[in-house]
Amino acid sequence: MRIVVINPNTSDAMTALIDATAQAAAGPGTSVRTVHPAMGPASIESHYDEALAVPGLLAEIARDPDADGYVVACFGDPGLDAARELATGPVVGIAEAAMRTASYLGRGFSVVTTLGRTRGRALDLAERYGCARACLAVRAVEIPVLDLDAGGAEAVMKECAAAVAEDGCDAIVLGCAGMADLAAQVSAEIGVPVVDGVAAAVRTVESLVAMGLRTGDRGEFARPPAKPYTGTLRDFQIR
Amino acid sequence: MRIVVINPNTSDAMTALIDATAQAAAGPGTSVRTVHPAMGPASIESHYDEALAVPGLLAEIARDPDADGYVVACFGDPGLDAARELATGPVVGIAEAAMRTASYLGRGFSVVTTLGRTRGRALDLAERYGCARACLAVRAVEIPVLDLDAGGAEAVMKECAAAVAEDGCDAIVLGCAGMADLAAQVSAEIGVPVVDGVAAAVRTVESLVAMGLRTGDRGEFARPPAKPYTGTLRDFQIR
Amino acid sequence: MRIVVINPNTSDAMTALIDATAQAAAGPGTSVRTVHPAMGPASIESHYDEALAVPGLLAEIARDPDADGYVVACFGDPGLDAARELATGPVVGIAEAAMRTASYLGRGFSVVTTLGRTRGRALDLAERYGCARACLAVRAVEIPVLDLDAGGAEAVMKECAAAVAEDGCDAIVLGCAGMADLAAQVSAEIGVPVVDGVAAAVRTVESLVAMGLRTGDRGEFARPPAKPYTGTLRDFQIR
Amino acid sequence: MRIVVINPNTSDAMTALIDATAQAAAGPGTSVRTVHPAMGPASIESHYDEALAVPGLLAEIARDPDADGYVVACFGDPGLDAARELATGPVVGIAEAAMRTASYLGRGFSVVTTLGRTRGRALDLAERYGCARACLAVRAVEIPVLDLDAGGAEAVMKECAAAVAEDGCDAIVLGCAGMADLAAQVSAEIGVPVVDGVAAAVRTVESLVAMGLRTGDRGEFARPPAKPYTGTLRDFQIR
Amino acid sequence: MRIVVINPNTSDAMTALIDATAQAAAGPGTSVRTVHPAMGPASIESHYDEALAVPGLLAEIARDPDADGYVVACFGDPGLDAARELATGPVVGIAEAAMRTASYLGRGFSVVTTLGRTRGRALDLAERYGCARACLAVRAVEIPVLDLDAGGAEAVMKECAAAVAEDGCDAIVLGCAGMADLAAQVSAEIGVPVVDGVAAAVRTVESLVAMGLRTGDRGEFARPPAKPYTGTLRDFQIR
Amino acid sequence: MRIVVINPNTSDAMTALIDATAQAAAGPGTSVRTVHPAMGPASIESHYDEALAVPGLLAEIARDPDADGYVVACFGDPGLDAARELATGPVVGIAEAAMRTASYLGRGFSVVTTLGRTRGRALDLAERYGCARACLAVRAVEIPVLDLDAGGAEAVMKECAAAVAEDGCDAIVLGCAGMADLAAQVSAEIGVPVVDGVAAAVRTVESLVAMGLRTGDRGEFARPPAKPYTGTLRDFQIR
Repeated sequence: MRIVVINPNTSDAMTALIDATAQAAAGPGTSVRTVHPAMGPASIESHYDEALAVPGLLAEIARDPDADGYVVACFGDPGLDAARELATGPVVGIAEAAMRTASYLGRGFSVVTTLGRTRGRALDLAERYGCARACLAVRAVEIPVLDLDAGGAEAVMKECAAAVAEDGCDAIVLGCAGMADLAAQVSAEIGVPVVDGVAAAVRTVESLVAMGLRTGDRGEFARPPAKPYTGTLRDFQIR
Repeated sequence: MRIVVINPNTSDAMTALIDATAQAAAGPGTSVRTVHPAMGPASIESHYDEALAVPGLLAEIARDPDADGYVVACFGDPGLDAARELATGPVVGIAEAAMRTASYLGRGFSVVTTLGRTRGRALDLAERYGCARACLAVRAVEIPVLDLDAGGAEAVMKECAAAVAEDGCDAIVLGCAGMADLAAQVSAEIGVPVVDGVAAAVRTVESLVAMGLRTGDRGEFARPPAKPYTGTLRDFQIR
Repeated sequence: MRIVVINPNTSDAMTALIDATAQAAAGPGTSVRTVHPAMGPASIESHYDEALAVPGLLAEIARDPDADGYVVACFGDPGLDAARELATGPVVGIAEAAMRTASYLGRGFSVVTTLGRTRGRALDLAERYGCARACLAVRAVEIPVLDLDAGGAEAVMKECAAAVAEDGCDAIVLGCAGMADLAAQVSAEIGVPVVDGVAAAVRTVESLVAMGLRTGDRGEFARPPAKPYTGTLRDFQIR
Repeated sequence: MRIVVINPNTSDAMTALIDATAQAAAGPGTSVRTVHPAMGPASIESHYDEALAVPGLLAEIARDPDADGYVVACFGDPGLDAARELATGPVVGIAEAAMRTASYLGRGFSVVTTLGRTRGRALDLAERYGCARACLAVRAVEIPVLDLDAGGAEAVMKECAAAVAEDGCDAIVLGCAGMADLAAQVSAEIGVPVVDGVAAAVRTVESLVAMGLRTGDRGEFARPPAKPYTGTLRDFQIR
Repeated sequence: MRIVVINPNTSDAMTALIDATAQAAAGPGTSVRTVHPAMGPASIESHYDEALAVPGLLAEIARDPDADGYVVACFGDPGLDAARELATGPVVGIAEAAMRTASYLGRGFSVVTTLGRTRGRALDLAERYGCARACLAVRAVEIPVLDLDAGGAEAVMKECAAAVAEDGCDAIVLGCAGMADLAAQVSAEIGVPVVDGVAAAVRTVESLVAMGLRTGDRGEFARPPAKPYTGTLRDFQIR
Repeated sequence: MRIVVINPNTSDAMTALIDATAQAAAGPGTSVRTVHPAMGPASIESHYDEALAVPGLLAEIARDPDADGYVVACFGDPGLDAARELATGPVVGIAEAAMRTASYLGRGFSVVTTLGRTRGRALDLAERYGCARACLAVRAVEIPVLDLDAGGAEAVMKECAAAVAEDGCDAIVLGCAGMADLAAQVSAEIGVPVVDGVAAAVRTVESLVAMGLRTGDRGEFARPPAKPYTGTLRDFQIR
């Protein structure tokens, strides 16, 4: 089985970090390739960044249409519906995988993310994924995605501990692909399960493929109708 | 006051139709300019089309940053959150304007749209805008957006009549900017109020601007943080 | 176009204040007349007051049945459903107009009102109008409606600032018609958009009338059936 | 214990019918007095009627302030919040009592009412009382309240049978005080439990009084603040 | 009328306490018998205890199949659906009776219970009974059920006072059958209505029986289909 | 990794069928053992059966406390909360795994189950798992669990086809462990993805264990407190 993990921002370092986690999560017999788009924002910290990460993400799917499944490795799950129309195999976002995985671990979870301005998006996704009641809080360390290295781990650890103490959560969800390497460490420290969406999404895609399941394509998620595309985006035209 | 109405697809004919409705809806003293992007899909009939309409939409806002307000004239309200971060003035989508306007007219409304595959998006928006209970049904005439001319009016009329008879709705919402010219005719025929989102959105932006209101910019909708953008989308970089 | 704004309490001073705001909000070509009932409570600060303000409100609509539209200028939106059955033109309450208007300005708003005992009514209305998620808090300054003059502005300002600091709101909704004159001042001071329902409702009625929209009258909101009325309220009989 | 049952319309015949049911439902040692207001509509079939039934209802409570508890015997539960502020003892509406009582009898119930135009009010109340999921349908026989005698029983029976067959309901709620005498007959005929709100509300008030429970009066439902009332409604002034 | 009150744990002392409250709550002409199972946990403080209390509870219903109605006297309402299938008369849980009774007393109530680990179950029940909005908080005194005697009353009192001060509740619900004797005392002390589920459930069953109402048995709650049962639980086989 | 799959009824044939599916679903390196309890009902078709299946289920967990994870292989997910308190490793029910898995495949799914009387339980679970919006319908073939062999496959196939045609679903969820062998066949026939909960739950447990995740045990799901158990169930006592 071959899975493509797409980091929708253009950061090489973050793509490498995601790749390490994805490779470790994949089961035997699964080949994982982690890529980032050739166009778009260096990091995703606003609705604007997220919207403009989607074309590059879709281009990566179009470039490798025969993979068995795809992971969208940004906690905003950008372009998920569009990706499902385009891809033949299943597509899973790390926010949906993380939130649904955490739902198996107790009554409620807290999300710990980077910037507070992305909190709204996380809440929207929790609502969409049926996790509004389970999502007890979305907390932010207020460190930009690409600055997580420098002292980020400590800040995340601290916020996770606060979540356990104040939110009554049974589990923590790490709200950024850039935190993927922290799950085990944080869990060991604070004593509650910590879910990283990259690992969760890789495992979910693997399971779906193994069970022969992919997006239903008889209605909303059928292949997009062919039509002219013009200008800078003309290469996205579907024929 | 100066309002820019953006048809997010690249169809000249549909842009002209939207412009006629928008001009008619605007009050005295309001200047309306209707544009379409230089890039992207000819029509929006899938999540894929919608995602790829957003860059062109955002480019139009960036190109005219001093307008007093903006209308996003596609019933999927593509890129609305991103547009609100980018624009200085208020931005209103035609789905949200239509649904909220219809909410003043009774307990429930039915949406009549083009293709059934877009029904899911309309339901998502109804949920997001707090109109899930009020939105009694989303009905589709199964005619592509750009084919509405040929016999489209009749099909829309018929579906609206069915909505009144079967859904118990107090009002109809036209679920496509390409139907903007049908509101008066349908309402006269079927005897219930019919809301066209283009007119509703133009009036809403006018009202917001007149009251000095624009998107709050102290949190989620603050201007997007500056960062590198690369590749085909490099011109979207915010500095 | 001619709009009647009805302050459902009997206070002359508050009616004058509402009138000033309504006149300022109305567009060119719109004539606004602000009235108060000849019967009922001097202010509305309980469910009891609200219920007993409704007959006088309905009498004002009946007295001027040819107006193009009506505003109910009390934040409890008393008698709105009944008014919609009675009136030929659209009827808009200031709570619904304010909450829906604020919904265009971001993810969430806080309401700042007079007495804490009216908080429940505001929450009920937020639920009814589909704004339960958007309404982040209802805060009270604990000053009676008719005492707002004396120091009221300062208390409102302070509570609005607290809302911004503590609730994470994108906008403020002023929860009393008696605060209508404070919107601009508060907004300037605290730097977030502040919505006054009187202005919002006047603009909304104007827009509905301009678009030829009024309450659907084929079902729940058809004219009330004729029947005998007796006693003190006999004059309300519909024939 | 002494309970006042208030039929909020002015019909003598319907008051007598309600009284018979209420007397039969009351336990030993409970004295029931059924009254109707001296003012207002002959029947309640619109939001307008309902709003104008409230002053008369409140007057009846004020006239007998020492009763142990009160029943509001109209399925729209008019004026319930106001009545709770005014009364010292508990106040229960027949819609809330019927819906909550039916909730003990299975997963879902259907409401069978008089006119379809009141369906919206029933749905609003189901939402308010936490019965939105349990309320599977609101069906109307389209017979005016005061015409229920003539053939009404048969129509109600038929609609109840249809509810059982089509809605999958475990119980039926009779949606009008004027149907109070039909519960036993309908239940015997269709073989599912049938709840009449008049009996249910009388039993509920009895239980609340027996347990020493009445509306909490430290916040929203405290006695209304004193203030001037003028005009036709001046006698409602609270001092 | 004959009602069986079942304390689902095996504590004699708690059964006696429940019996005293149940006897006091019952009206004239009602005979109450309070029992506890011959098998299962000494107290119910976990999902595990609750699940294992159900067989004993069902055995008590099977042992006395001709009672007019049954009360399940544990705030987790264990086995309620199963009991309704099995019993001929109505079955009411003390949590549902308490929460619905409290709903008549104002907008919101707080639950005060024993151990914090049972909070989740109370929230699940509030959701199921349509009381999620009304249930403002679930507070725990962190005293095990069977230790409530020693100092428990004081701790409960203190927590109830905190609920009134901090939650804005109109009423308190005592969240454990072992607190049944405290309702009057707490209410007198803190000045808000306090609902004990044992009394509320006894009154509710009485009312249902008096009105001739029992669980609908044409669908989900019909008698369980006969089938083999084996092993330790073989005696539960229905033939 | 070692997973125990527990069929909570006592049917050998159904246990064998479940085992075949579970073994096929498990990845390399995972050892699956499928068991059924030594006590309880031969099949689960009522709330009563379900409640009485729980002790046997818990006994199987207690008997093999060192497994890495557990699957509860009945679509009612009986005893899931209790099992999570008791087990050290993760516990997953087939309804929750099937519903959440189906949620990755599109907007909505239909459940096809055995008896209509179990529909209520499926709806309750959909609500609990955040799948109420996604679960478009619960359909029943009205064939008892243990009779599925004889002609059951055909009936299931027919109902699945009806679901696709009438419900607008993107995927089907098989609502009974006894249908586990039908997923591939039905999917091939009707052309939409079909989710079997047994396979989905085995894969989910595998993933959780692989990621080092298990139920949070610091609050609601901590090990149940020790206490006396008596009578027939005395062996369930936790020390």
